[in-house]
Amino acid sequence: MTGPAPDAPDGPQQPPRRRGPGRPRQDEAAEGPGTQERIRLAARSEFAARGYDKTSVRGIAKAAGVDPALVHHYFGSKDDLFAAAVELTMEPALVVPAIVGEGPDGIGERLARYFLGIWENPATRAPLLAVIRSALTHEAAAKVLRTLVLRRVLERVAADLDVPDPTFRAELAASHMVGIAILRYVVRVEPLASADPEAIVALVAPTLQRYLTED
Amino acid sequence: MTGPAPDAPDGPQQPPRRRGPGRPRQDEAAEGPGTQERIRLAARSEFAARGYDKTSVRGIAKAAGVDPALVHHYFGSKDDLFAAAVELTMEPALVVPAIVGEGPDGIGERLARYFLGIWENPATRAPLLAVIRSALTHEAAAKVLRTLVLRRVLERVAADLDVPDPTFRAELAASHMVGIAILRYVVRVEPLASADPEAIVALVAPTLQRYLTED
Repeated sequence: MTGPAPDAPDGPQQPPRRRGPGRPRQDEAAEGPGTQERIRLAARSEFAARGYDKTSVRGIAKAAGVDPALVHHYFGSKDDLFAAAVELTMEPALVVPAIVGEGPDGIGERLARYFLGIWENPATRAPLLAVIRSALTHEAAAKVLRTLVLRRVLERVAADLDVPDPTFRAELAASHMVGIAILRYVVRVEPLASADPEAIVALVAPTLQRYLTED
Repeated sequence: MTGPAPDAPDGPQQPPRRRGPGRPRQDEAAEGPGTQERIRLAARSEFAARGYDKTSVRGIAKAAGVDPALVHHYFGSKDDLFAAAVELTMEPALVVPAIVGEGPDGIGERLARYFLGIWENPATRAPLLAVIRSALTHEAAAKVLRTLVLRRVLERVAADLDVPDPTFRAELAASHMVGIAILRYVVRVEPLASADPEAIVALVAPTLQRYLTED
């Protein structure tokens, strides 16, 4: 063996440095392309399908086709895996600062349409629902969401807003979209559940526009 | 036996007639004052404290100080008990139609302040959170919420509104308050979690006002 074998934690050889969940370094690809990402994707699927309680490190390892020790090695505890899954799930939200960065004109409409698009797509809806469900039932999950949402989305959005208390405003806008998602996709209250997305955008866009642009 | 005894599952004696959860008749007191109400209160406490999964008919019976057979007799299944608990929990929402009935002037501010008041009070917050948590994780619970919210609150609110699609408008308003509750009290994202309730009212009231009164 001539170099480090970073993806083989259960032998005596040199292990890779453990790092925070979901934060691959630039040199990651050189170390072991695909393995971490596969574990992350498996974590997202497992948490989305089974919920926080019924998901295990072993189950994620099996779904990823790797040894549980490797999962522990890269991601640490179940909570770290959950954090990685949440980060992956929230990736669409990372587009939000770019949307906000386009400027105040029509920002409410762009955001409303973007959020509804994420929720309308079953592939992104399922893991998002899983994140919300977990956050509502487990403080560890709520903490992950709180920390990630704050750090990675809301504060960046707020930095581009020219209103008083911009983070507070961004949170009010986010709260509306979260509430709509819950009543439309989980509780499925009618007529909201069957409403044309554009009918929702038409009414909600002015609300987001006001929160994010008006004093 | 001289007539049909359709509701006597577990004994030969004349039973009280079973009825829908949470709908005591006027002659209830004569049959067994307080018992149904005690079971209902116990159901609310148990579901709020333990969640849907871990609550049992036996546990509710014990908390109410009655025989489990009596609980089954009055309320039927666990889902029926949950429905009764939800109804009890949602009672503050039954005030909403009255608030809306006062007319369009200031309706947004009155509603925002009323909802935040319910959530600010830990005694009403805990069971409400339990209802939302359960609805997010159990279709049976979501169905109860959907049916009760629609029938008992939203449609009555909508009847007093002079806007297009009044139920849809009422649902959008409700979605905003639900989302704020989740981000403020469950995820506890800052600064929303620590914000003065009146700061929230000041920003949210115009949103509710627009949904509920403007074309």
